[in-house]
Amino acid sequence: MLALAACLASARPVITSGKNPVVKALRRLESRRHRERDGLLLLEGLRLVTDALDAGFCAETVLVAEALLAQQPGLQRVLAALPAGVVSLADEAALAAACTTVSPQGIVAAVRMPERTGALPDAASLVLVLDNLSDPGNVGTLVRGAAGFGCDAVVALGACADAWSPKALRSAMGGTFRLPIVPAQEWAQLRAQLQRAGLRVLAADGGVAASDYAAVDWRAPLAVVIGSEATGLSEAVRADLAAGSVCAVGIPMAAGLDSLNAAMAGTVLLSECARQRRGNTARSG
Amino acid sequence: MLALAACLASARPVITSGKNPVVKALRRLESRRHRERDGLLLLEGLRLVTDALDAGFCAETVLVAEALLAQQPGLQRVLAALPAGVVSLADEAALAAACTTVSPQGIVAAVRMPERTGALPDAASLVLVLDNLSDPGNVGTLVRGAAGFGCDAVVALGACADAWSPKALRSAMGGTFRLPIVPAQEWAQLRAQLQRAGLRVLAADGGVAASDYAAVDWRAPLAVVIGSEATGLSEAVRADLAAGSVCAVGIPMAAGLDSLNAAMAGTVLLSECARQRRGNTARSG
Repeated sequence: MLALAACLASARPVITSGKNPVVKALRRLESRRHRERDGLLLLEGLRLVTDALDAGFCAETVLVAEALLAQQPGLQRVLAALPAGVVSLADEAALAAACTTVSPQGIVAAVRMPERTGALPDAASLVLVLDNLSDPGNVGTLVRGAAGFGCDAVVALGACADAWSPKALRSAMGGTFRLPIVPAQEWAQLRAQLQRAGLRVLAADGGVAASDYAAVDWRAPLAVVIGSEATGLSEAVRADLAAGSVCAVGIPMAAGLDSLNAAMAGTVLLSECARQRRGNTARSG
Repeated sequence: MLALAACLASARPVITSGKNPVVKALRRLESRRHRERDGLLLLEGLRLVTDALDAGFCAETVLVAEALLAQQPGLQRVLAALPAGVVSLADEAALAAACTTVSPQGIVAAVRMPERTGALPDAASLVLVLDNLSDPGNVGTLVRGAAGFGCDAVVALGACADAWSPKALRSAMGGTFRLPIVPAQEWAQLRAQLQRAGLRVLAADGGVAASDYAAVDWRAPLAVVIGSEATGLSEAVRADLAAGSVCAVGIPMAAGLDSLNAAMAGTVLLSECARQRRGNTARSG
């Protein structure tokens, strides 16, 4: 038996039942209500757990299979550094019962959620606003793009799907641990906040009045709003588009095709911003 | 009762059983083997069915709910133009039994698959190659991007997930009907074909040797290869990268983050190609 595994097994029994209260407490974190009440996230799989610990997230509970420890010397070092009582060995049945995925990957953890304030980071120069997106996979994909393309924060506006759900965390592939996720109830307040921060506001829009996104200067500080999959931008944002205080940007598509889905449209806009800010001079003409 | 509905109901009974042979034949098209044997696709929902018919696809069987016909005068006109015997009324239970989605949308159809040759369209100037992608959602998303950003064809290389599966068709949102999907067994043959067609070959690659995609000239005729979600580019493509006959392009990301997923990376590359070809002169500097 491995040193860490022996040490863990001597401290407390290996968890072998899906009815174990620790397992049940983890599984409850699938629900947003429980996550927010307990202030904890559910992380499944080696990649997400180690990304969160690397990013300084604080683990409350870790269940791990002995077989995974044996394969992953790096994981042993990471887990051995956690406070006593946080890590327990568990068998496959207990891990499966704690997980929302069909094939648990040998490790599952509850980590403390970051403080959720409504404040934007100081001196933000690029903020992505998710306007009532309903699909957690799209939310996660956009969080991943935001982290990869250098956003300072992602704002979850209104009834946006939770970026801390297991599905959104999986799609974000660690991006969620790299930048603040800021909740915002109302567009009017958020718009005032963005304006105070000196950010120009762009919104992705498939309408004919939208400017070609690639003809826009993305180098000044700005916020970009992505509308929901089913209904697009919310009414309050649309009203500001009509009033001219928000600028509509569109992605030109082949004739007869609808605009891209929310995740792909957001990814294209963020990539263009990053391209311009990198100072790429490749151009057509 | 509506005129079309009355006409349909007089011609044949409303289908009300999930065990009806027509329903069972439709549902079997969820399987790739049955689709290829029968040469038919399964389309679910108003949007996909009307997109396919608009694009000239030939319907063999359509089951429709009377309630949907009542709501959609345009659909009535489209269905009334189909040959006798193709369209039948069905109730909710029969439609649900024919569908792979949880909430059937009142219409399901089998349409004839386009001829699957291995030939590229003449004078292609942009071809997207999907190198053994395994996720049908990613395949569909990339087909949609390819159609939207002006590709002439999508090549499904090796064991690529089927672009004609219900899930890929849903993600492609009609893009599949807008450009040829070309099967290719082996990279060596495909590469020769691309070279004969005068296409330079680029491949998305997260390695440090890759060129910044935005510093590459995308205006010349070219093919772009996207690797699989789990294992990236296939070995044969990697060998050509090493040999210099394929050019690696990468998307610069924030430090410490892995490359984007396959669908996002492909969408970003195609959008850059379209941007350069549109002649956008927005640049940083």
